Amino acid sequence: MTPETRISTKEKILRLIEQQNYAGLSLALQNLHPADIAEVFRELPQNAREASFDVLDPEEAGEVIQELDFDLMVELMAKLDAAKLVPILQLMPSDEAVDVLNELPDERVYEIIRKMPDLKQASNLKELMAYPEDTAGGLMSSEFVKVYADMTAEDTLNYLRIRAEQETTSFYYLYVVDRHDHLVGVLGLRTLITAPPYMTVDQIMNPAVDSVNHYDTRTVVAEHFQKYQRLAVPVVDNVGRLKGIITWDDAAEIMEEELTDEFYTSSGLSTEEFYTEELLAGRLSTAVKSRTPWLLVTMLGGIVAVLVGDMFSDTLHHVPILAIFMPLLGGLGGNVGTQSSALIVRGLATGHATLDKTFLHVIKQFRVGAIIGVIIGVLVGTLVGVWKGNPWFGLIIGGGLLGNITVAATLGTLVPFLFKRINIDPAIASGPFITTAIDVTGLTIYFGLATWALSHLG
Amino acid sequence: MTPETRISTKEKILRLIEQQNYAGLSLALQNLHPADIAEVFRELPQNAREASFDVLDPEEAGEVIQELDFDLMVELMAKLDAAKLVPILQLMPSDEAVDVLNELPDERVYEIIRKMPDLKQASNLKELMAYPEDTAGGLMSSEFVKVYADMTAEDTLNYLRIRAEQETTSFYYLYVVDRHDHLVGVLGLRTLITAPPYMTVDQIMNPAVDSVNHYDTRTVVAEHFQKYQRLAVPVVDNVGRLKGIITWDDAAEIMEEELTDEFYTSSGLSTEEFYTEELLAGRLSTAVKSRTPWLLVTMLGGIVAVLVGDMFSDTLHHVPILAIFMPLLGGLGGNVGTQSSALIVRGLATGHATLDKTFLHVIKQFRVGAIIGVIIGVLVGTLVGVWKGNPWFGLIIGGGLLGNITVAATLGTLVPFLFKRINIDPAIASGPFITTAIDVTGLTIYFGLATWALSHLG
Repeated sequence: MTPETRISTKEKILRLIEQQNYAGLSLALQNLHPADIAEVFRELPQNAREASFDVLDPEEAGEVIQELDFDLMVELMAKLDAAKLVPILQLMPSDEAVDVLNELPDERVYEIIRKMPDLKQASNLKELMAYPEDTAGGLMSSEFVKVYADMTAEDTLNYLRIRAEQETTSFYYLYVVDRHDHLVGVLGLRTLITAPPYMTVDQIMNPAVDSVNHYDTRTVVAEHFQKYQRLAVPVVDNVGRLKGIITWDDAAEIMEEELTDEFYTSSGLSTEEFYTEELLAGRLSTAVKSRTPWLLVTMLGGIVAVLVGDMFSDTLHHVPILAIFMPLLGGLGGNVGTQSSALIVRGLATGHATLDKTFLHVIKQFRVGAIIGVIIGVLVGTLVGVWKGNPWFGLIIGGGLLGNITVAATLGTLVPFLFKRINIDPAIASGPFITTAIDVTGLTIYFGLATWALSHLG
Repeated sequence: MTPETRISTKEKILRLIEQQNYAGLSLALQNLHPADIAEVFRELPQNAREASFDVLDPEEAGEVIQELDFDLMVELMAKLDAAKLVPILQLMPSDEAVDVLNELPDERVYEIIRKMPDLKQASNLKELMAYPEDTAGGLMSSEFVKVYADMTAEDTLNYLRIRAEQETTSFYYLYVVDRHDHLVGVLGLRTLITAPPYMTVDQIMNPAVDSVNHYDTRTVVAEHFQKYQRLAVPVVDNVGRLKGIITWDDAAEIMEEELTDEFYTSSGLSTEEFYTEELLAGRLSTAVKSRTPWLLVTMLGGIVAVLVGDMFSDTLHHVPILAIFMPLLGGLGGNVGTQSSALIVRGLATGHATLDKTFLHVIKQFRVGAIIGVIIGVLVGTLVGVWKGNPWFGLIIGGGLLGNITVAATLGTLVPFLFKRINIDPAIASGPFITTAIDVTGLTIYFGLATWALSHLG
């Protein structure tokens, strides 16, 4: 949807509501894809959003809910009573329904589950809700097709025909279980269609089926998908019984969320307690709180840098002009350090950098830093020497830059590896920890050099 | 595959090669998933990698190639002659085959295509290769199932049975075309299975099929998948003829690459000319070159900061101790600026921040900056006032921090929007441009305050 269509659709909706033409509104929304409705909803004032949501039929409403941003979803849900919510939830995939239920107060959840006419669905939802949200169990849905190993191909096809008429479950793969519900294989539709009708499922299935455990973390699930590139992965309990499936669209969402987390974390934003959407659109207090941990670290680091500078106050008193080069040193050091740490953080996340190669990477980045340091040191050092008419200035600035940039590249590489080794998210490292460490070491090198050459700087 | 399994597998392979037990090697590899083989390959020395690749049958070899990191893939391909490559390429999905061919010298490509026994496949590959790599045409594959609108459901099912026996094409969706090859609808297998056998495809298909144009960019393709969450999207030419499909696994790869690009770009690494894997594992010169553009900007910015500092050299001569607080100001300002720009860069990429809301976001981040600035300014200002025994020092440092942090949050928000408005990747903004701008304005505020209060600082 282009911005122009979005705006014209928005205006059309507002006009229809103003005219109280709800039949027209319903018709206008029916012609839109749920993802487009969700996009327009974000632009509407709250009452218009509620009025529009009200005219959607339950199936459409469920699809729109799945597309809505988290804050709008919560806002709309809060207004609906159980009688309206039950039919919507019944038609949603169970994993999405659980995501909605998890945002409601406990009493409402009990009321809704009690009012569900389909008892099997209600108990399914209760079972799914019992899992922590970030485990495979919390991500899986109950909509999958399970067939028994001893059925024939013909029976299986007939069974599918009946299911396809009754339900909206999609057949990514057919999962094969024994009579005790243990996952024993997987069967593709294409194999089934072409198999002789009298053969049994266990004769044509692929017994090498990979699965995740119901308590595996979302990261494990995402890695599984990234590696094996399946459309869906079955989830089993500790004794191998099939509990649900996770589909590729959930996995894609997890991968995107994890990368966003990594990006935010290494930019100094805390993502632990907040939904990423809240950080941009949410309240001021959330915005401030999410930044606090990194700012405190930066502040403490800054205070250490002040104390280091204070140790060299004699040198500064003699040659105050030294101070004006500090931002140049800090900027270039910080930049090189961030570059190196971004490479390692991403590398560790994708598996292209591993802990056993720490030394190799540190050496390599040290060399990269040294090369860049020599180039920039000579360039800027010459400039400064000429400008101040004193080669010693050039020598100190150039030497300071060389030292600072080399240390920055090395620290930027080493720190993420160290964090990873002690099981802290390496993305945290690439923020203020590295810049502060670089500031402190860079200042020491620079002022150390200046103090040593003090007699030539007068 | 755990690191332990990987190491033991690697040792097993090396032992088998040493014993020249190629039958054993072939057996050992057959039991591994192609993704696991690719993981072990990265650990092996080149000759062992080539020996192992040699014992794979063509189908397996093709699967392993698709899982390999880019540099290893190129290395292995360079060693194979056409006679070995042709059978491998024949069994690969056409989009992956094209990715391999694109890395070979032109003469070799011609030779390989000439030697392909299946002329239709050869001409398909030639057609796909004609598209630029980052367009929908360059991403699509020719393996899809096309059915005609006037076929009956029964004919279609029979046709699928035959195709399923002959080929390995998977049936995500069946695409419906008219007799001139124009895409007119899409049909799900479940609808087909349950349809009365005498109905024609156009009676049961969904005519609302979304597609992308063959010259759409990879970004457009990724957005399409993200929004509509399909397993595959058909690619059509300018007159609506069906040319190929792009499947979800390619889209997931694009999304991940784009996020990685965004992350690298805002960390000051150039991704335009280099594969991201090269930056970590590649040659020193690549590593240095990818960092150069940002470092030059930082260097120029640093020189501007030096000149600004030089303007205040009188103030510095009177009160040299002012200099030791510069890293604290720079660090906190840089951090707050990076936080804001990361939010906006991500928001612009996901659509949660839009250009028409620029003013709202700038105001909001200005307020966030002001709140943080007051808190940190009062805290650090008080500390410094007590430490130096002069409240004026506290006032200047505190005021400098407040000004610097507020400006940082505002600039960090504004600059990505400005870049976006003039069609430059906003991720570029969040690197050195912002830190330099913050350094310069922050220094001016700080030294301006100090110069104004100079008489009290003696």
